[in-house]
Amino acid sequence: MPTVCVISIQSLAASRKADTAMNFPDWMSGIQQRIESSLDATLPANGIAPTRLHDAMRYSVLGGGKRIRPLLCHAAGSIFGADISVLDVPAMAVELMHAYSLVHDDLPCMDDDILRRGKPTCHVQFDETTALLVGDALQTLAFQTLSDRLTGMAPARQLDMLNLLAIASGSRGMAGGQAIDLAAVGQQLTLSELEFMHIHKTGALIRASVLLGAHCGEAMPDDLERLGHFANRIGLLFQVIDDILDTEASTSTLGKTAGKDAAQNKPTYVNILGVGEAKSKAAKLRQDAHDALAPFGEAANRLHELTDYIVERNF
Amino acid sequence: MPTVCVISIQSLAASRKADTAMNFPDWMSGIQQRIESSLDATLPANGIAPTRLHDAMRYSVLGGGKRIRPLLCHAAGSIFGADISVLDVPAMAVELMHAYSLVHDDLPCMDDDILRRGKPTCHVQFDETTALLVGDALQTLAFQTLSDRLTGMAPARQLDMLNLLAIASGSRGMAGGQAIDLAAVGQQLTLSELEFMHIHKTGALIRASVLLGAHCGEAMPDDLERLGHFANRIGLLFQVIDDILDTEASTSTLGKTAGKDAAQNKPTYVNILGVGEAKSKAAKLRQDAHDALAPFGEAANRLHELTDYIVERNF
Repeated sequence: MPTVCVISIQSLAASRKADTAMNFPDWMSGIQQRIESSLDATLPANGIAPTRLHDAMRYSVLGGGKRIRPLLCHAAGSIFGADISVLDVPAMAVELMHAYSLVHDDLPCMDDDILRRGKPTCHVQFDETTALLVGDALQTLAFQTLSDRLTGMAPARQLDMLNLLAIASGSRGMAGGQAIDLAAVGQQLTLSELEFMHIHKTGALIRASVLLGAHCGEAMPDDLERLGHFANRIGLLFQVIDDILDTEASTSTLGKTAGKDAAQNKPTYVNILGVGEAKSKAAKLRQDAHDALAPFGEAANRLHELTDYIVERNF
Repeated sequence: MPTVCVISIQSLAASRKADTAMNFPDWMSGIQQRIESSLDATLPANGIAPTRLHDAMRYSVLGGGKRIRPLLCHAAGSIFGADISVLDVPAMAVELMHAYSLVHDDLPCMDDDILRRGKPTCHVQFDETTALLVGDALQTLAFQTLSDRLTGMAPARQLDMLNLLAIASGSRGMAGGQAIDLAAVGQQLTLSELEFMHIHKTGALIRASVLLGAHCGEAMPDDLERLGHFANRIGLLFQVIDDILDTEASTSTLGKTAGKDAAQNKPTYVNILGVGEAKSKAAKLRQDAHDALAPFGEAANRLHELTDYIVERNF
């Protein structure tokens, strides 16, 4: 019986691979290149006035980051056979939204950080005023990008996508999560309060990334509900792993300041649960995420692979 | 002949009045009340988490301001018989966008102002971090509001409206204008450089306010082009008057710090042209604005009245 079981798992793994044209690293690298080149073309070119603002926008978006949100968007869209060039558009929108949040998050009045993706943060490289406007203008560009008419997409669906992105990013989503996070500095949070914060701060945009990808295909309400559940799991998973890395990894590996949360007395999974239990929690969330994808069968392989990648990353 | 001419002008004025159900102050006050109550219902209520952020958003938007942009939106829509409750939506969106820009503009790293609409600025009343997030979340709410499905509006047209608002607000519109403005502090600008800055900083959103209103009715491309020209004139007119008021009015009248531009060594129409020539320029822009509306006849009465109101204001 154990032998049969092993063979059966191997067959499943083989069939997953057969379903997709290329291996995961190649697929990931292909999407990352598409996104880099789409963002490069979408951001105002160097030399267009106001030049300093545009230089700083390009500096803050291009040439860095693992593009997790665009990858999730593409992977979710692939379940429903969505057009890859249509998927580039919401993928860019979520990455621009993420980039704006990082630039503002690093400002002196927020986390006051000097290092991001291995480079000086925007306000260090340029100045605080420019960084403020960079964040503002990147948010606007996210909405501008997603409101360009998309070939082959019903305008009503595109409107719904814009609405979804806005709700995920605003005061009851990502920006609200930032506010909860800052209010929590130096506070003793319960596990559920910590989760409430993360569901907003990082979870909302991760969820939007997955759902926007699904909207580019023929996803049904049931599909969206399942994917929403999956996204909630990986949103938390991402954060638990982040907290473990913040404790265990070095600044040079992370490309951002390690040990910062502890130094700022921020509540984390590690300081509420301890490293051991945080790792158990990550394992449980990872399994839950895989389970949530089960109804999609092999079509969800890219999301399975991304789930594993989020756990095994060291960035 | 002179007598005939006077009678003819009076008849025109009478017919303009006859065309509209109420006088201008009553109309203005009615729209202002609609916008206040729509914004009140759209902003997250007090008590919804994160409460401090939502309190600060409400503080920054409600109970103040002349609502010039919503008034322009409604007035432009009235030319084409647009539904007044549909007009409320883009009117709110432009006001939320304007409110976000004011909150960020007042921050210490920008204009560092302590008074706005007669009250302490957001970062003074709350704190700098909250004010940063308030601006971020108000921008998002502008897009969220305009992406809610509008009854009786084709989704494709609504997408175009979102795109128009985004372009007007981003790095090549309002946010870009802020960057140009800040780079100009202490610089000697020519009149055309000053206008280039204002066309972006305040002009772009004023233009969007007019065009979004027109989009809610059956405006044709020619109409939009004429209204765009009108809006460019009143955008500059608004700024020339602002500069004159900054020199001549008191802080208590303005509800914001008077003489601030001079103190910050910012280029203004008054310091480039002198007060006398700035007033002549305002008179010319006012006439150009009225002229641009001529093809619309009496249907544009509200925009004529708003043009005069912008000149005669003392706020």
